[in-house]
Amino acid sequence: MNKIILAPDSFKGTLSSAGVCKIMKEEINRVWPDCQVVSLPVADGGEGTCSCFVEALGGETHALPVRGPYFESVRAEYCIINDGKTAVIEMASAAGLPLVKDNKNPMLTTTYGVGELVRDALSRGVSEIILGLGGSATNDGGAGMASALGALFFEETGKSFIPVGGTLKNVTSIDFRETHRLLSGVRLRVMCDVSTPLCGPLGAAAVFGPQKGANETMVVELEAGLAHLGSLFAEIPGKDDVLTLPGSGAAGGLGAGTYALMNGALESGIEIVLDTVRFDSLLEGCGLVFTGEGRIDGQSLYGKVISGIVRRAKPKNVPVCAVVGSALDDQIQDAWSLGLSAVFPIGRRPLAFEEAGPQSEDFLRHTMRNLLQLLNAVGR
Amino acid sequence: MNKIILAPDSFKGTLSSAGVCKIMKEEINRVWPDCQVVSLPVADGGEGTCSCFVEALGGETHALPVRGPYFESVRAEYCIINDGKTAVIEMASAAGLPLVKDNKNPMLTTTYGVGELVRDALSRGVSEIILGLGGSATNDGGAGMASALGALFFEETGKSFIPVGGTLKNVTSIDFRETHRLLSGVRLRVMCDVSTPLCGPLGAAAVFGPQKGANETMVVELEAGLAHLGSLFAEIPGKDDVLTLPGSGAAGGLGAGTYALMNGALESGIEIVLDTVRFDSLLEGCGLVFTGEGRIDGQSLYGKVISGIVRRAKPKNVPVCAVVGSALDDQIQDAWSLGLSAVFPIGRRPLAFEEAGPQSEDFLRHTMRNLLQLLNAVGR
Repeated sequence: MNKIILAPDSFKGTLSSAGVCKIMKEEINRVWPDCQVVSLPVADGGEGTCSCFVEALGGETHALPVRGPYFESVRAEYCIINDGKTAVIEMASAAGLPLVKDNKNPMLTTTYGVGELVRDALSRGVSEIILGLGGSATNDGGAGMASALGALFFEETGKSFIPVGGTLKNVTSIDFRETHRLLSGVRLRVMCDVSTPLCGPLGAAAVFGPQKGANETMVVELEAGLAHLGSLFAEIPGKDDVLTLPGSGAAGGLGAGTYALMNGALESGIEIVLDTVRFDSLLEGCGLVFTGEGRIDGQSLYGKVISGIVRRAKPKNVPVCAVVGSALDDQIQDAWSLGLSAVFPIGRRPLAFEEAGPQSEDFLRHTMRNLLQLLNAVGR
Repeated sequence: MNKIILAPDSFKGTLSSAGVCKIMKEEINRVWPDCQVVSLPVADGGEGTCSCFVEALGGETHALPVRGPYFESVRAEYCIINDGKTAVIEMASAAGLPLVKDNKNPMLTTTYGVGELVRDALSRGVSEIILGLGGSATNDGGAGMASALGALFFEETGKSFIPVGGTLKNVTSIDFRETHRLLSGVRLRVMCDVSTPLCGPLGAAAVFGPQKGANETMVVELEAGLAHLGSLFAEIPGKDDVLTLPGSGAAGGLGAGTYALMNGALESGIEIVLDTVRFDSLLEGCGLVFTGEGRIDGQSLYGKVISGIVRRAKPKNVPVCAVVGSALDDQIQDAWSLGLSAVFPIGRRPLAFEEAGPQSEDFLRHTMRNLLQLLNAVGR
């Protein structure tokens, strides 16, 4: 075996994708010391997105003080890859749930700091920005971010203000010419869960509001605020589909804001990752791809990391093997139909997650060694 | 892949070894239609022992009426293989627990019918008898079997009788010259759990008495009876080790009886199977051996089917892969040290045995397909 690519998602709650890559690589090189191993610890816009790109392509990290979720000062990071051409920004770095700890209130939080990170990247002359949406503490429809990039949100009195979740309903008009000017010539690709719409029962407020601290009353207000802001967005030429656009509800409506005000393209995170690292080129000479995630199910097969990997590897006849925390056996047929050669759960015997989780590293290591030893022995 | 050998134990409580072979073979031929698949559904002396040999070597089955556990008439079977040279007899066919159903009483049951099966085989001119011990309803130290083969057991009055578990203590002497004459020139190999001694806390009565229906008082009597019979056996020239011989306690002391009165060789079942099917020859040209069992643990690694397979395959550099119901992960290092390339549990996610058991067939099928598809894809 000359070359193997590792492109696992994280095993949520137990192992990061970088951790999975490390274990896989160690076990591969134990069996095949000379095998080239390409590690691509996939992230889909949430935590780990920057390090995914830097791990695969190299790059530099920039840290700067910006406004946090409550307009307080926080130190946030982003990275620049591709010889300075591309910035990768995790929105959670400036407006993520971990920053607010137990003080959650999506009526008050802002994405302003995210806009400041974008602005800093622009000042360094990047021509492409990859913005990862995931883990947000906000529900401001991207109004904060746009404000940091020069957009003006006016209330009825004609005064401009920086809207937050609870004040979206006060916006009467938006002037985003400065935002457009700043972003002129820059490609904005937005990594997001492309299944979340802006409003409605499956939308940002209803589904994600509660985990950001909203009670029932707040959810109703947040929903109304996003619907109002969305209706203003929909008046922008070419943006009349914003209310139904899949992904517009990602990160508390930040998806909609980037689309409407910044011409952002809302995409599945894995596609952006695979494009950016030039996955198709990496597949040249590759004998096997290992992917994986905590739990394989319908969603992962048809929307996320594993299916994205398989779609690209299959036409090049590179086998893909998934190693997963657990699998729903009644969906294994779907996995094979998709083009996966195999799906191996790492659990060794019936164990509750509480007991199995802490042993994930050993389980993964043992499963990899079993697979590699067998492939090696049979391939001799 | 040109040739694969399947040599699994049963998955106790869910799949027979023949059933495991069938599924494995179907999945192999789905991926490699031209691959030669040798099925060897391993049994260790209990149920399935006859069909194991017949499946591997061909042979004929004989059925005849014999005495059952309570001296009632039952129809029992055995088989003859190796062009008429070897008989394979499962003791349980004439004296097994399933025959007594809920009427269990090892104080009263006999192995007499087992002796009748042996006698029938001898009448057909076999030169070797393989006797499988396993699943017995008896605790008669083989006295019944020997009686059917002409041995005389005398009580104090000088009268001969056929001892059962509860009357072993009445035996004062044994005349087994006729038994020796009948078996002259015949090799008797006894498949048994070679860890059970005749007496003591790990012996036949203490460990297996209760599952044969003995209460505490009975266990004490059965133990005393076997100890008494054993002391008579130990007076036979060359048999002074019978009381401590591993395996002598198998099948309620039938091990000791075959050893002392019939010069039987007590052996691990898997070794007899592998010798008889000429496993070493089968390994020629074989690219992979699949073995497996319900649960892999210390016992299976160091005494039974899987370790027996590996000991023979390893010197010939044929990889062995175990597919198991469940595995104890902390013993995987031992499995690798033994020489197994890999151990794959068939469970896909944490499930209690009650829920997972009935799905074993699907789970096994899916695990095999994952392995075979991966081997095939990587091997291209």
